[in-house]
Amino acid sequence: MQIQVGIVGAGPAGLMLSHLLHQRGVESVVLDTRTREEIEGTIRAGVLEQSSVDLMVDTGIGERVKRLGMVHHGIELRFGGRGHRIDFADLTGGRGVTIYPQHEVLKDLIAQRLADGGDIRFGVSDVQVEGITGDRPRIRFTQDGAEQQLDCALVAGCDGSRTTTRFLIPSPNPRQDHFRQYPFAWFGILAEAPPSSEELIYAHHRNGFALISTRSATVQRHYLQVDPNDSVEDWSDDRIWSELHTRVAGAEIKEGPIFSKSVLHFRSFVCEPMQHGRLFLAGDAAHTVPPTGAKGMNLAIADVHVLSRAMAEFFANSDRTALDAYTATALPRIWRAQHFSWWMTSMLHRMPEATGFDLHRQLAELDTVTRSRAGRTLLAENYVGTPFD
Amino acid sequence: MQIQVGIVGAGPAGLMLSHLLHQRGVESVVLDTRTREEIEGTIRAGVLEQSSVDLMVDTGIGERVKRLGMVHHGIELRFGGRGHRIDFADLTGGRGVTIYPQHEVLKDLIAQRLADGGDIRFGVSDVQVEGITGDRPRIRFTQDGAEQQLDCALVAGCDGSRTTTRFLIPSPNPRQDHFRQYPFAWFGILAEAPPSSEELIYAHHRNGFALISTRSATVQRHYLQVDPNDSVEDWSDDRIWSELHTRVAGAEIKEGPIFSKSVLHFRSFVCEPMQHGRLFLAGDAAHTVPPTGAKGMNLAIADVHVLSRAMAEFFANSDRTALDAYTATALPRIWRAQHFSWWMTSMLHRMPEATGFDLHRQLAELDTVTRSRAGRTLLAENYVGTPFD
Repeated sequence: MQIQVGIVGAGPAGLMLSHLLHQRGVESVVLDTRTREEIEGTIRAGVLEQSSVDLMVDTGIGERVKRLGMVHHGIELRFGGRGHRIDFADLTGGRGVTIYPQHEVLKDLIAQRLADGGDIRFGVSDVQVEGITGDRPRIRFTQDGAEQQLDCALVAGCDGSRTTTRFLIPSPNPRQDHFRQYPFAWFGILAEAPPSSEELIYAHHRNGFALISTRSATVQRHYLQVDPNDSVEDWSDDRIWSELHTRVAGAEIKEGPIFSKSVLHFRSFVCEPMQHGRLFLAGDAAHTVPPTGAKGMNLAIADVHVLSRAMAEFFANSDRTALDAYTATALPRIWRAQHFSWWMTSMLHRMPEATGFDLHRQLAELDTVTRSRAGRTLLAENYVGTPFD
Repeated sequence: MQIQVGIVGAGPAGLMLSHLLHQRGVESVVLDTRTREEIEGTIRAGVLEQSSVDLMVDTGIGERVKRLGMVHHGIELRFGGRGHRIDFADLTGGRGVTIYPQHEVLKDLIAQRLADGGDIRFGVSDVQVEGITGDRPRIRFTQDGAEQQLDCALVAGCDGSRTTTRFLIPSPNPRQDHFRQYPFAWFGILAEAPPSSEELIYAHHRNGFALISTRSATVQRHYLQVDPNDSVEDWSDDRIWSELHTRVAGAEIKEGPIFSKSVLHFRSFVCEPMQHGRLFLAGDAAHTVPPTGAKGMNLAIADVHVLSRAMAEFFANSDRTALDAYTATALPRIWRAQHFSWWMTSMLHRMPEATGFDLHRQLAELDTVTRSRAGRTLLAENYVGTPFD
C-alpha cells in the first residue's frame, strides 16, 4: 500500500498529526500495537494549555473538551503553612488551563479520524521501519496474522517514551540524547472523595512535595514525593493520609477510600535532532518532561502543529525547507518547557542531599516568586503556555 | 570607658551602624585592627541598590555618591552570541543601581563620623568580647601598646567574613551555619583601557561565565569564571583577552595593559540566629553572597538599618522587643538575596559536571527570562533591590 505519511503510534502526537494532516489534505495511516480499547481505556492525567484547547476547537474536535473539561484559572502554591494563589486569569490576560484526561483527547481524535475516513490500524505487531534515508521508506507490520507493508513518502515516529523509531537515528552522530534523572518518585493515589480544593495545590514541605488534584466530583488524584525505591506496599492508607495532611498543612484534605496506588518514575529527556532523512519524531518519542509542569501532552500537540504544516508544504510544493527546519523550529519551545518543568520540580521537591542552605534558599525562591507580581506572572505564563507560532 | 554600643569592625556594616545610631542619638565606639589607610585604600567593587543610595542621601552622606557614582539603568545578559538588555528603569519604575566602590563608601562614612565627633579606633589589636549573655558585655583591646576596655550595653559584630564575633554564638545550638560552596572561582583583572560597554555585561558561554565591568573612563574591571585551583600564573594576558573575546562573543572588548590579576573564591553563607544575648551580628560577619548578584554591601546596609532602629528603641524605651526580633526581621531579605545571588550564579556559570541537558536547560532559562517582560522584571526588581521596610 502507498501512503503519503506513515505514522507509528496512536497516542496524542500520532493521532493529532494524522488529524491535522487530513485537514491540510495529506493522507496518513496510523499504526499502534495496542488495541483501541487499551488506548481509550488507559487512564492518564491531562492538563491542556489554552493553545492546545484552541487548536482542538479550531480543527473541529473541541465539543467534548469544551463541555467536559474543567477550566482552571489558577493554582495554589503552598509552603510554610500558607497558600499563595497564582491567578492565571489576572496575570495572563484571561488565559487558563483545562483539566481533561489524555484518554479523552484520544477518544475525540479516534472518533474524528474514523468519521473522516481515516485509517488507523490497532493491535498490529512486528512494526519495522526501513529505508528512512532513501526516497521511499517502508513500514512492515503484521495485522491479523498477515504481513503488510506501507510505502511512505514520510514517516512520523510518535511511539511515545518506549519508542523504537528514535533508535533509527544513529547515535551519537547525529543523535544526542540529553537526560536528567531525578532522585525521587511520585506516589499516586485515586480516592473516592469530594474535591479538597477547587484548584490544584502544589505543596512544598520539608518532608517532600505533595500535589492535590481532582478527577471529578467523586474521584480525587493526589501525589506524594517518595523515595524512588519505595513500593506500593510501603504506604498504608493511614500513612498516605497522614503524610498528605502534614505536607499540605493548613488546607483541609478530604479523605475517602483509596482504590488505586502506584509509584511513578520520571525524568527529563530530549533527543536532538528530532529527524533523520524522512523520519520525524514527535511527542514523547523525542522528549519527556517530569509531570510537575503539566507540559507532556501539550508538547506533543505543539510538535505536530509544526510538523503537519511542514509536511503539508512538502507535498504541496515539493519543498523540503520547512521539513529540514523542523527540529530547529520545534526545539526552543521544547527546551523552554524542559526548563519550566525542571524549575517547578526543583523549586518544590526536596532533594535527598538537600542541606539547610538548600531548604532555606528554596523557601526564599518561593517567597520571591509569590510576593512579586512579575514572579507570579512568569510562572503563570509558562504554566498556561505561550501561543503556537 | 562606658559606651552604649561597642562595634567590632569598621567596614560598611560597622561604620554605617555607628552613623545611623548617632542620628538616633545613640553613641558608639568602632574598633578595627586595620589602619584608616588600609581601610580606605583596599580597593573593592561596589554596586549600591537604590535604597542604599537613598539611605546615604537621607542621612547626610550622599554628596559624593551622587556626584561620583555612576548610575546604571540596566545590564546586558549575553548568551548564544546575542545581547539582551535588562532595562531596569523601564521595568522597575525608574529605579537603578549606582556603581560606587566600597572603599569610597567607607571614606564617606569615616569622614562623617569624625566630623560628628564619632569615636573610631583604628589599628587596635587583641580584641576580645566578653560577657555577651550578661547585662554588661565588655570589649578588651590593645591600642598604642596600652590595654583598654569598653563596657557596653550592646555589642555589634561587624567584623566581616573573617569574623571572630560570630563564634561567640554557641554552635550548633543555637547557631546554625548554612553554607553553599561553588566549584569555581573568578579571575579578576584591572586593565588600562576605555570602557567596552556603558553597562555591565553578564555573559554565559559554554567555556564559562564572564563579566565586563567598568571602574572609570580609563580603568576596566573584568572577570572570568576559572577553575578554583587556578592561580594568577596560569593566565597570561593573551589567554585572558582571548577568553574574554570568546565568552563575550559579539560584543567588542577593548584591550589595554593589565595591571592587576587575582583569583577570587566565594561561597554562600548564612548564620542563624544573628544574635545572642547582647551581641548582634551584621553584614558579612553573619552572611556572605557570591558577587554575581551584587548584593554584599547592600545586605550590610539593610541589616544595620534594622539593627540601628531596634537599638535606638532599646535605649529610648528600655524595650527589647525589636532587638529580640532582629534576626527574624532581617532574615527574609537576606534569604531572598541569597536566592537571587544563587540564581544569577547558577544561571550564568558552567558547572564542572554540567551535562548537555544542563547547558541546554540553562540557555532555555536565559531565553525564558529575557523573552518575557515578567522574567526581565523579576530579575530587574531583585537586582535594583526592594525598598527598606
